[in-house]
Amino acid sequence: MSYQRSAERAANALRPLRITRGYTRHAEGSVLIEFGQTRVLCTASVEERVPPHQKGSGEGWVTAEYGMLPRATHTRGAREAAKGKQSGRTQEIQRLIGRSLRAVFDLKALGERTITLDCDVLQADGGTRTAAITGAFVAARDAVNGLLASGALKTDPIRDQVAAISVGIVQGTPLLDLEYTEDSACDTDMNVVMTGSGGFVEVQGTAEGVPFSRAEMDALLQLAADGIATLVQAQQAALAQPLVKD
Amino acid sequence: MSYQRSAERAANALRPLRITRGYTRHAEGSVLIEFGQTRVLCTASVEERVPPHQKGSGEGWVTAEYGMLPRATHTRGAREAAKGKQSGRTQEIQRLIGRSLRAVFDLKALGERTITLDCDVLQADGGTRTAAITGAFVAARDAVNGLLASGALKTDPIRDQVAAISVGIVQGTPLLDLEYTEDSACDTDMNVVMTGSGGFVEVQGTAEGVPFSRAEMDALLQLAADGIATLVQAQQAALAQPLVKD
Amino acid sequence: MSYQRSAERAANALRPLRITRGYTRHAEGSVLIEFGQTRVLCTASVEERVPPHQKGSGEGWVTAEYGMLPRATHTRGAREAAKGKQSGRTQEIQRLIGRSLRAVFDLKALGERTITLDCDVLQADGGTRTAAITGAFVAARDAVNGLLASGALKTDPIRDQVAAISVGIVQGTPLLDLEYTEDSACDTDMNVVMTGSGGFVEVQGTAEGVPFSRAEMDALLQLAADGIATLVQAQQAALAQPLVKD
Amino acid sequence: MSYQRSAERAANALRPLRITRGYTRHAEGSVLIEFGQTRVLCTASVEERVPPHQKGSGEGWVTAEYGMLPRATHTRGAREAAKGKQSGRTQEIQRLIGRSLRAVFDLKALGERTITLDCDVLQADGGTRTAAITGAFVAARDAVNGLLASGALKTDPIRDQVAAISVGIVQGTPLLDLEYTEDSACDTDMNVVMTGSGGFVEVQGTAEGVPFSRAEMDALLQLAADGIATLVQAQQAALAQPLVKD
Amino acid sequence: MSYQRSAERAANALRPLRITRGYTRHAEGSVLIEFGQTRVLCTASVEERVPPHQKGSGEGWVTAEYGMLPRATHTRGAREAAKGKQSGRTQEIQRLIGRSLRAVFDLKALGERTITLDCDVLQADGGTRTAAITGAFVAARDAVNGLLASGALKTDPIRDQVAAISVGIVQGTPLLDLEYTEDSACDTDMNVVMTGSGGFVEVQGTAEGVPFSRAEMDALLQLAADGIATLVQAQQAALAQPLVKD
Amino acid sequence: MSYQRSAERAANALRPLRITRGYTRHAEGSVLIEFGQTRVLCTASVEERVPPHQKGSGEGWVTAEYGMLPRATHTRGAREAAKGKQSGRTQEIQRLIGRSLRAVFDLKALGERTITLDCDVLQADGGTRTAAITGAFVAARDAVNGLLASGALKTDPIRDQVAAISVGIVQGTPLLDLEYTEDSACDTDMNVVMTGSGGFVEVQGTAEGVPFSRAEMDALLQLAADGIATLVQAQQAALAQPLVKD
Repeated sequence: MSYQRSAERAANALRPLRITRGYTRHAEGSVLIEFGQTRVLCTASVEERVPPHQKGSGEGWVTAEYGMLPRATHTRGAREAAKGKQSGRTQEIQRLIGRSLRAVFDLKALGERTITLDCDVLQADGGTRTAAITGAFVAARDAVNGLLASGALKTDPIRDQVAAISVGIVQGTPLLDLEYTEDSACDTDMNVVMTGSGGFVEVQGTAEGVPFSRAEMDALLQLAADGIATLVQAQQAALAQPLVKD
Repeated sequence: MSYQRSAERAANALRPLRITRGYTRHAEGSVLIEFGQTRVLCTASVEERVPPHQKGSGEGWVTAEYGMLPRATHTRGAREAAKGKQSGRTQEIQRLIGRSLRAVFDLKALGERTITLDCDVLQADGGTRTAAITGAFVAARDAVNGLLASGALKTDPIRDQVAAISVGIVQGTPLLDLEYTEDSACDTDMNVVMTGSGGFVEVQGTAEGVPFSRAEMDALLQLAADGIATLVQAQQAALAQPLVKD
Repeated sequence: MSYQRSAERAANALRPLRITRGYTRHAEGSVLIEFGQTRVLCTASVEERVPPHQKGSGEGWVTAEYGMLPRATHTRGAREAAKGKQSGRTQEIQRLIGRSLRAVFDLKALGERTITLDCDVLQADGGTRTAAITGAFVAARDAVNGLLASGALKTDPIRDQVAAISVGIVQGTPLLDLEYTEDSACDTDMNVVMTGSGGFVEVQGTAEGVPFSRAEMDALLQLAADGIATLVQAQQAALAQPLVKD
Repeated sequence: MSYQRSAERAANALRPLRITRGYTRHAEGSVLIEFGQTRVLCTASVEERVPPHQKGSGEGWVTAEYGMLPRATHTRGAREAAKGKQSGRTQEIQRLIGRSLRAVFDLKALGERTITLDCDVLQADGGTRTAAITGAFVAARDAVNGLLASGALKTDPIRDQVAAISVGIVQGTPLLDLEYTEDSACDTDMNVVMTGSGGFVEVQGTAEGVPFSRAEMDALLQLAADGIATLVQAQQAALAQPLVKD
Repeated sequence: MSYQRSAERAANALRPLRITRGYTRHAEGSVLIEFGQTRVLCTASVEERVPPHQKGSGEGWVTAEYGMLPRATHTRGAREAAKGKQSGRTQEIQRLIGRSLRAVFDLKALGERTITLDCDVLQADGGTRTAAITGAFVAARDAVNGLLASGALKTDPIRDQVAAISVGIVQGTPLLDLEYTEDSACDTDMNVVMTGSGGFVEVQGTAEGVPFSRAEMDALLQLAADGIATLVQAQQAALAQPLVKD
Repeated sequence: MSYQRSAERAANALRPLRITRGYTRHAEGSVLIEFGQTRVLCTASVEERVPPHQKGSGEGWVTAEYGMLPRATHTRGAREAAKGKQSGRTQEIQRLIGRSLRAVFDLKALGERTITLDCDVLQADGGTRTAAITGAFVAARDAVNGLLASGALKTDPIRDQVAAISVGIVQGTPLLDLEYTEDSACDTDMNVVMTGSGGFVEVQGTAEGVPFSRAEMDALLQLAADGIATLVQAQQAALAQPLVKD
């Protein structure tokens, strides 16, 4: 007998997904992405300079920063700016987001400029890092569209879409898109990042309790691939709308 | 001949004001406050402990932290958590918000607990600190209402309302509620914090260009007092609605 | 019946004021300023470079740093260098001193050089920030006089004097130049910075206890204006003496 | 045609492996592990206290710290202690080592004590994090054996072995145990952590260049499983020897 | 032919020495010590607590902190509080001062309290660390006298005097009490700390240019011993005066 | 009756000394030096740039960094990289190593390049700083030999050898080369750095308990000079072997 999810959600169902473009007005791309109660504001900022390791290379750079508002969570977390450092978890997540986005960028075609994806969690209910990647892609797409429209870029440096989802095993049942209570209870937790054409960009699976088997891993990867296919379509649908800044 | 504001706004007019309670769901109070394009998320968190300087005093504490998302502004600002320290400006603002809120709290009546007001700017267009104070009061009110409703508090520790507005002189014209372009161009900039009953809590006036006269100061204080009276009514109107969490 | 000050001081009387120029020998300007038991060493250092935000602008910069020796106070305070960061209070004060001095400087006339005012409190008894501003002006004046004398500057970049004083309401009585015990007991505390010609540069009023009224504010501003007029004369008198380095 | 490895190594061959127990004398467990030219010193330290989040829980804690000597690498890297912070990469690795070791520990059986695994890279040639996990297990085993021998522990808190290896795809060829030049050239890089009984603890795959397919992932997981089986035997062989401190 | 010092000072002569007790009023001991143009403010603060490593030991602690005002020197030095860390030089000096003072303290007789010596350089002209030690002893003596007078201490925990001087070789000539220009030019620089009864507490000799010989070292140690004997008498003379707080 | 050392070591005997060159393979010089149970890995890294203070001077720079692995000691020490700062002790030691090496370098002959000596303690049993200096010289020699061999340098910038030893007085007996238990028990502790030709580079003597006399100091200096003569020969012997990288 399998685990019963809240709100009668099926094991392979995503939470209600909402992608709002133009959420704030200053950034070149600004997307609020919501997976159920998880809400992440993803902005893409274009700057006409690159970090030292890319200087003079003719290539651009794509990077990400991640933050969580202190009261995005059930109990207040300390503000990292006040503590004076980002936690290991924060750094791990922002490195993951950056790598995931770079996987679909042709940095040569981007030219010597930087796109920074700021992913700030306004409300957390599990899956913030995968929501961030999925939303950051849309923000990056809007920012690049602006560069193409202005003539700053002649060719599109984005080669494919990228999206991500979490999967996990709770009480023996493989589940798609874990919410917080499921995430806390799961034996295995896996974050999967894939391209629009179905290639894997990142797979990060962790046994929280007992180790997991190859069969379990296969089931999780299939769940994730199906979920990401849906996300990729949702990104396309959102981007097909005209962009209206709030 | 006086300075012409954008959108035909009168010199003594506030920008469109919107106060959304229950904006996020985990915090004991959560308010999105908007002054035109300035948007600040203010959450009130209740914790059953006090900082060391209040321990054993029988009194509670009210404090604030302030942050600005990196792309709340026209050009991306460095993330303070990544830089490893809060700027002098950030610290100055969060100290101001904390003092302003404490001015209307009876810390003895609050008991040994802490209310932390987190004010995070999602989008900036001038007046973020005064918007933060005005919104933080509403969030604090909701948090205290929760404590009263649950019986954790028997008597209301909030003695009065508190709200704030910026005023300034641009090209010789005293203006209420400066937006960013006005703030950048002004000769004198003043932030005023007042209680619901019309007492002054903070007055911070700064000559950005030429020094200002007593007459100019008087004009600005009057503008501010009128504006704050309107804000106090808006807080009451917002709090009169039933609280629905999003 | 009004509050009785120590040493039979009148409510509108300054503490004994002493301004010692040339207090240390290496700085371009070096002033020990004493307001009663409050003693602040203010040095002005001239450097032939500007911070990044002024580079290539043709303009100079005037900035300030503030510190308090650990045992300037009744009980030892932690050394900020050892703690590894300046407190919010320190940053707030040094930003205030910097703005106040810049208010009387023509940065264009200063040319691409920086004057740094270091204000270090040797002994504290209330009013350290206002003493620092008043003393820093004299140190800056000496430093600029040196630049004029050497021919490095052709025209004087200082447009006016600047001085500051604290005022406050203790037990209902408006008082000029609060010492520590008065400062701790006051309901309202206000720091006022004015130019030699009587314009306001900064007004920072804070209700420590009950909010203050317009009438109280008017009384405080008048007290401050009178006190500052005296300080401005004292600055002139000190500067009229020949400069002898200790 | 497949990629030719240095020293005629087969695609599915580990580098020469050496595990030296008792490498230093003060630690409760001290292991130098060598995978070819990669050398990591892993020490296990037992302390009779737990971090705050475990206090009073009756459970122990197992954690890890990772470092690289500045000249472990081809070009000198900045010393993290001198820079004043650990890089994101360092934190990510030490979090991974800690999770991997905890996966085979019964924290309840460990009792309220902490085992800290310090993994310091003396020389780096790829695969330092997986070597660290494999060596840290042996060090932890020696430390726990000491606790059992002394009677401090009655039951063994270690439930299984744990070991790790890196795999990757270079020029289309799946390879086991990447050395530095292979790691730099690979399209896909995967770190796999497994228990002695063959369960997965962590799988972290990253597409460095083009995304990877399910078929490629399957091939890599099989290579890793085979390699880890060999490592598990090597751990057993090393532990079967009497422990002689150098 | 030997090196000619400024102001016709003999090679074995100290600079004019001045010890002013009660220089500031809040500290339990407060001494301004002047060696020619070098001026260091030394305060002794008594606190009724000890650092963690002495807790419950029944012993007290004596420690020191050292700082230099930014413009104590010819060119402005960065403020350590603003930089966010103390330099290696600062830490080395404050550790030296602390060890030197502890050498004459019976920590058991002091009881569980801490004396902190803050040594802040108001003006630097060479020899600040040795001036600091010599002045800190007098401040500590005044602080302990206060504890004896109040009855907090029954027996005197100070066993001997301690004083320090710098010596060095400039152009082949051994010199006592180097001023800044001599210090910059010297081949060998030695700081010597001795007790009132003539024992060595610290000897720190450094070859700045060519290495030094045993014969040179002997000459320097003799110069230092003679100079310190004079300093010990000066400390006694200063302490023989009644203490008047400024 | 004098103090009896462990292993029947004579008061004037060094511990067994071992110098292993080519200990790791990436560094230009890499030496493991062992004084009994004290083991320090010293690497010399050559970089074709100089720190800011040497830029454009035509001179090179020689500097050192020191670290101790957390479990080099009897009880685990906190990792400095994790704490976010180097202790005062660490900074003091690395400054000493740097000065000692620079004493035998002709920086002009080195040209605008930097040699960094990283001295990392793998196992500590007293005398780590003096072992580090002695080993760092050999590593520096190997690195410079490489520069001479490659033609990057035409003339040898090393003017002499440098080596160091600790001496101390334990229970009245002057001892050479203190191990940890002796170091903890000593009354006087002295570190001496000398050149191959017998000149003094650094003498740092500290009274840990009672002050020391001139006679004691003379005895210690003689012990140290004899010990260093042996070390200098050992350096030569080690360097006379062909260099084989492990």
